[in-house]
Amino acid sequence: MMRDLRPLISPDSIAIIGASSNPGRVGGMPLALLLQHGYAGRIYPINPKYTDISGLTCYPDVESLPGPADLAVLAIAAEDVVASLKRCHAKGIPAAIVFAAGFAEAGDAGKALQDELEQFAAASGMIVAGPNCMGFANLNTHAYTAFASVFKNTPPPAQPGNTALVTQSGNVCAAVYSVGRKQGVGYNYVINTGNEACLEFSEYLEWLVEDESTHCVAGYVEGLRDGARFVRTVARARELNKPLILLKVGDSSKGQEAAASHTASLAGDQRVYKAALRQLGVMRADDLAHMADLCYLAQFRHKTGGKRIAIVTISGALGALLSDRFSDHGVEIPTLPADVQATLRAGIPDYGMVSNPIDITGNVVNQQGFFAEALGTVLDCAEVDAIVMYAPGYLLDRLTPELVEAAGKTDKLIAAIDTGNATVRETLEQAGIPVFTETGRAVAALSSFLHWQDGRRATWRPMPQRAAMTASALDIVETVRSKKRVALDEAEGKKLLASFGVPVAHEAVATNPAEAASMAQRIGFPCVLKILSPDILHKTEIGGVRLNIGSAQEAASACEEILAAARAKMPDARLTGVLLQRQEKSAAELLVGVTRDPVFGLVMTVGLGGILTELYQDVAQRILPVDAAMAQEMLRELRAWPLLDGYRGRQPADVTAACQAIAAVSEAALALGPELSELEVNPLMLRAAGEGAVAVDALAMLTPREK
Amino acid sequence: MMRDLRPLISPDSIAIIGASSNPGRVGGMPLALLLQHGYAGRIYPINPKYTDISGLTCYPDVESLPGPADLAVLAIAAEDVVASLKRCHAKGIPAAIVFAAGFAEAGDAGKALQDELEQFAAASGMIVAGPNCMGFANLNTHAYTAFASVFKNTPPPAQPGNTALVTQSGNVCAAVYSVGRKQGVGYNYVINTGNEACLEFSEYLEWLVEDESTHCVAGYVEGLRDGARFVRTVARARELNKPLILLKVGDSSKGQEAAASHTASLAGDQRVYKAALRQLGVMRADDLAHMADLCYLAQFRHKTGGKRIAIVTISGALGALLSDRFSDHGVEIPTLPADVQATLRAGIPDYGMVSNPIDITGNVVNQQGFFAEALGTVLDCAEVDAIVMYAPGYLLDRLTPELVEAAGKTDKLIAAIDTGNATVRETLEQAGIPVFTETGRAVAALSSFLHWQDGRRATWRPMPQRAAMTASALDIVETVRSKKRVALDEAEGKKLLASFGVPVAHEAVATNPAEAASMAQRIGFPCVLKILSPDILHKTEIGGVRLNIGSAQEAASACEEILAAARAKMPDARLTGVLLQRQEKSAAELLVGVTRDPVFGLVMTVGLGGILTELYQDVAQRILPVDAAMAQEMLRELRAWPLLDGYRGRQPADVTAACQAIAAVSEAALALGPELSELEVNPLMLRAAGEGAVAVDALAMLTPREK
Repeated sequence: MMRDLRPLISPDSIAIIGASSNPGRVGGMPLALLLQHGYAGRIYPINPKYTDISGLTCYPDVESLPGPADLAVLAIAAEDVVASLKRCHAKGIPAAIVFAAGFAEAGDAGKALQDELEQFAAASGMIVAGPNCMGFANLNTHAYTAFASVFKNTPPPAQPGNTALVTQSGNVCAAVYSVGRKQGVGYNYVINTGNEACLEFSEYLEWLVEDESTHCVAGYVEGLRDGARFVRTVARARELNKPLILLKVGDSSKGQEAAASHTASLAGDQRVYKAALRQLGVMRADDLAHMADLCYLAQFRHKTGGKRIAIVTISGALGALLSDRFSDHGVEIPTLPADVQATLRAGIPDYGMVSNPIDITGNVVNQQGFFAEALGTVLDCAEVDAIVMYAPGYLLDRLTPELVEAAGKTDKLIAAIDTGNATVRETLEQAGIPVFTETGRAVAALSSFLHWQDGRRATWRPMPQRAAMTASALDIVETVRSKKRVALDEAEGKKLLASFGVPVAHEAVATNPAEAASMAQRIGFPCVLKILSPDILHKTEIGGVRLNIGSAQEAASACEEILAAARAKMPDARLTGVLLQRQEKSAAELLVGVTRDPVFGLVMTVGLGGILTELYQDVAQRILPVDAAMAQEMLRELRAWPLLDGYRGRQPADVTAACQAIAAVSEAALALGPELSELEVNPLMLRAAGEGAVAVDALAMLTPREK
Repeated sequence: MMRDLRPLISPDSIAIIGASSNPGRVGGMPLALLLQHGYAGRIYPINPKYTDISGLTCYPDVESLPGPADLAVLAIAAEDVVASLKRCHAKGIPAAIVFAAGFAEAGDAGKALQDELEQFAAASGMIVAGPNCMGFANLNTHAYTAFASVFKNTPPPAQPGNTALVTQSGNVCAAVYSVGRKQGVGYNYVINTGNEACLEFSEYLEWLVEDESTHCVAGYVEGLRDGARFVRTVARARELNKPLILLKVGDSSKGQEAAASHTASLAGDQRVYKAALRQLGVMRADDLAHMADLCYLAQFRHKTGGKRIAIVTISGALGALLSDRFSDHGVEIPTLPADVQATLRAGIPDYGMVSNPIDITGNVVNQQGFFAEALGTVLDCAEVDAIVMYAPGYLLDRLTPELVEAAGKTDKLIAAIDTGNATVRETLEQAGIPVFTETGRAVAALSSFLHWQDGRRATWRPMPQRAAMTASALDIVETVRSKKRVALDEAEGKKLLASFGVPVAHEAVATNPAEAASMAQRIGFPCVLKILSPDILHKTEIGGVRLNIGSAQEAASACEEILAAARAKMPDARLTGVLLQRQEKSAAELLVGVTRDPVFGLVMTVGLGGILTELYQDVAQRILPVDAAMAQEMLRELRAWPLLDGYRGRQPADVTAACQAIAAVSEAALALGPELSELEVNPLMLRAAGEGAVAVDALAMLTPREK
């Protein structure tokens, strides 16, 4: 259920507990800001030392207020916070912001204080932001409840924008606000979440996504606590077409260490974060300027497109440079079709370029009307999603009327990079053309933005989050649980998967050499024998696997040797028997794994398996569910994809069957839901195209039951 | 031999042919600049239309000059250039700059003009820059010979710096000059090379490296024509401890296309460029701002170090963010030793961080002297090469005295990043502390700079560029040449390599099944048989390789089958026989190749071989010579290196033997020198550590002889 955060973020009246007339003090700054920016609601300073502050009546305590305020801002010491909240609650104040540090971030005593705070908030239903937070700024109503000098020193905006900023760090909050304002980002709310004792990042996000004045949310995140709410909220933001931009730290081990130490946040797996944010269609920012630039781009909301750009410059060198950098970022620069090139060539001299990058040469300014025509021709081209124009300032100035004209006739994005001193920025922006002044920042921001636009077209679709259990799976889980086990043996794992439609290798279980011989005869040669035990996960290491068995005789002796080896190496293991399978001849092998991430829940990993995949970290990951189409995307994402696709005359593998099998694994994992800890098919063998795929080995672990 | 470019770059007198009083014209701008900046040498405007221009005597033609000028600036049309140069030469003018476009970049007629220009310059010995160039700026003598408005509009520097800028593009030249000046880069010369008809990039570089006023050279390059001179010059720059910074475009296919089209420059292999520049210790810039930032950093010349940094901030979030970004760039952030942490903890509260990144917290400003002590402790730590300080402007202002004090006591680099509005930039810079105002640019520049510093310690050492031929190699080359062949067969290739000390597999050549049987008996089993023919390069494809031969009998029939297959599939091939080898059991296999790059000459490529190495592009490259130590660096550079080094319980391979073999291949290639087109050992089999390496197959191609 979504709580209404309006009293917190858009209060009609504000009590400041610990108010001060000195704007240099924590209790003075919000008051000064409210007055400076002309907040129209009621302000109640509270401080027993004064009777009035800055011309406002000052109350000795919260009880003396003429009525309940929407919001109490607590500018008091940590140890006084909970008592004060109780008095606010008694007065009927529904929301509070706690500035004080000295809670969970500060040792055991602080942790105890924070527990107390949390318990009170949970019991009372009071909406409490912080502690250890810098406060908020509402640029719509001028409800500034922050003790940040940035709101005093940065000139106030002429009018609020539509970008909400939510950060887990006060320093980042102030810095991004300042960088963003310089780049022309219009904010409506600025929120620093602090320790998030009672109100977590995703809950703010949820409220902001539904807020009408918010068209875009930018966030700084060290860790998410409520992954499910986050995923739900991001899906809702997509529905409402509101871009989300996140700066998430912790990619590196040192960054993660620092983030964890900073807010004691749940780390989660950084690779899963990366995959999940991409899958969910969240724009990922790399640093403060990049974040501000993405907010800036997101303001040009009517533009749609993909990642195929035309580069237009007046210099071959700058065209080459931009091509290199955009290519680094995976942006495509398609060669223009011959007819488009011919149209361009009519006005561009020989020493210019028409194939893309386009070098219109400085000459173009002398030809009345040609540039507008050239832009129109390129924008009409179906192979091009956006134009990036790169020119020295004085040329940009001259070409602006034509750029504006072209922008008025297209839904494709036109962006400009100015090498210096163009005077036309405002004119271009009003025409829907973002302007950058530095190549590096322009390429980083435009690349992220265009990839995001491209991804929006296909990556994510709402899919059922649950799947029905099969009778066979229910049986197996019951059996395993009844035996107090958590690991399924290979036969159980494959039977479970098969019940969801995962094709598994034809197999049989022998308990002695004679059985092995006759079963091998039935299965056919060559075949494989493997030890079967819920206690033995790494079969090869103990001599528990034999390949290339060519006769019944060989099968019998292999069975005997395997059982003997297992008894010798792992005397305590429970031995179910020996598993026999036809030895598959494969075009390729995949690893398909599902693990439980502490933030995002069940997550699938797909890769080629083997030691090189591990070294090159060449895997694709998704939050479940994964359907066959998404499985196909995952496989194509692998750098090793060509190996599945007939690289250098190899036999193409049955990718269709692989994708169906992967989707079935996803279905099985979702059906098991909270019961499942880990599920892995390794290898999933792919035969040649059209001949199917088969799970050769499977590993499954249930979640341990609480005792 | 090095030509003296002084008359061109530092002329004592300048004649401007086609001079104009209008600074908006090509012949007017240099004159205006010379006068604006107070050039002290003589200026001779030449134009038959005027008797004086801007107070200077104007001469009707070059013949009328009172004496020869050092330099003629030709502001005249392309078709008049050569005639004018001849008259200048006749007058005794040793150098000229040609502005005009319309040469090689402009079709066949232009190419003919450029050929004529080249021929005249070569025959006369005249030093001619351009054509199609923007001219030069000499900030030492104020000899501005450029028609670029940037030198008019950017305020003149108080005094010249020591950074020379040489670019193959006029637009880049102007843009980098302007960006660099903003960042505080002091230039002495700015040179645009244009079409480089008679004077190539590396020749300018060579002169600049020897020039006393130049401490650093920054270049923009589309293509190098004289790789040998470039390599020699870079080596000389290292000797003189003068950093080189290059922005080289063409990394991407589109960038390469644009660069090639732009200056018709020799493309070369982009991966070789990348490897070579790194090997030679050239700093590589990614864009204009990055280049300016590297020049800025290079000005702080007394600092030495490596790539292990300590990050000092007053915010856990900013520390986490910087850690992520520096880690992305491969910069190391070592965890500080326990005693250093303990010293820091004495002054940093619990909620701060001491392990690195270090969060000193805002609290630190209240503790007189602690910050200086903390900085000293970290700088004394042997695990740290540099400190990066990140703080909001007001805090940087407050901490500056302590930063300056610390900088005075260390040779390690301290760099600062200001989140905004610090007023102390100049003070810090004077203390040797570079200051950045944006995280993204700071991280990009510092990372490149620290990697370069780290690499300077080891990467490159001058080594002999030639090696002596062996008698055996001379024999083989003579035999191959006498038979009008270019390809060596496998036995010849291995014999050649063996003569340089490359260990090759024990082998024998059989011409019939009976010989094969007896030779196999002598070599031992299992053995391998391979077709031997100078005309068959891909043996496997035609059924010319048989593995796992276990007996003399098998060897005889394999020999028969191989010869039959070769005769059937390639009836025209000359068959030398069948090669027998002991089948090696290897811990790992390498590919060791030498190819001839059009720019850098003989280049070695080392990788693991196989299809995945190809897909993941996991190879290391170096210009020859490669000695054993460099070979070791190459192997460690591979992402697959752990596979050679005992990853996950695998047997470590004999890396020492591999490195010796690689060095011997390099020696062989160098000895062959211009005779060699291509040399490849694939695979070089590595046995377990201590057991050696062996070249199992070898391919060698000589350069075709001109008919």
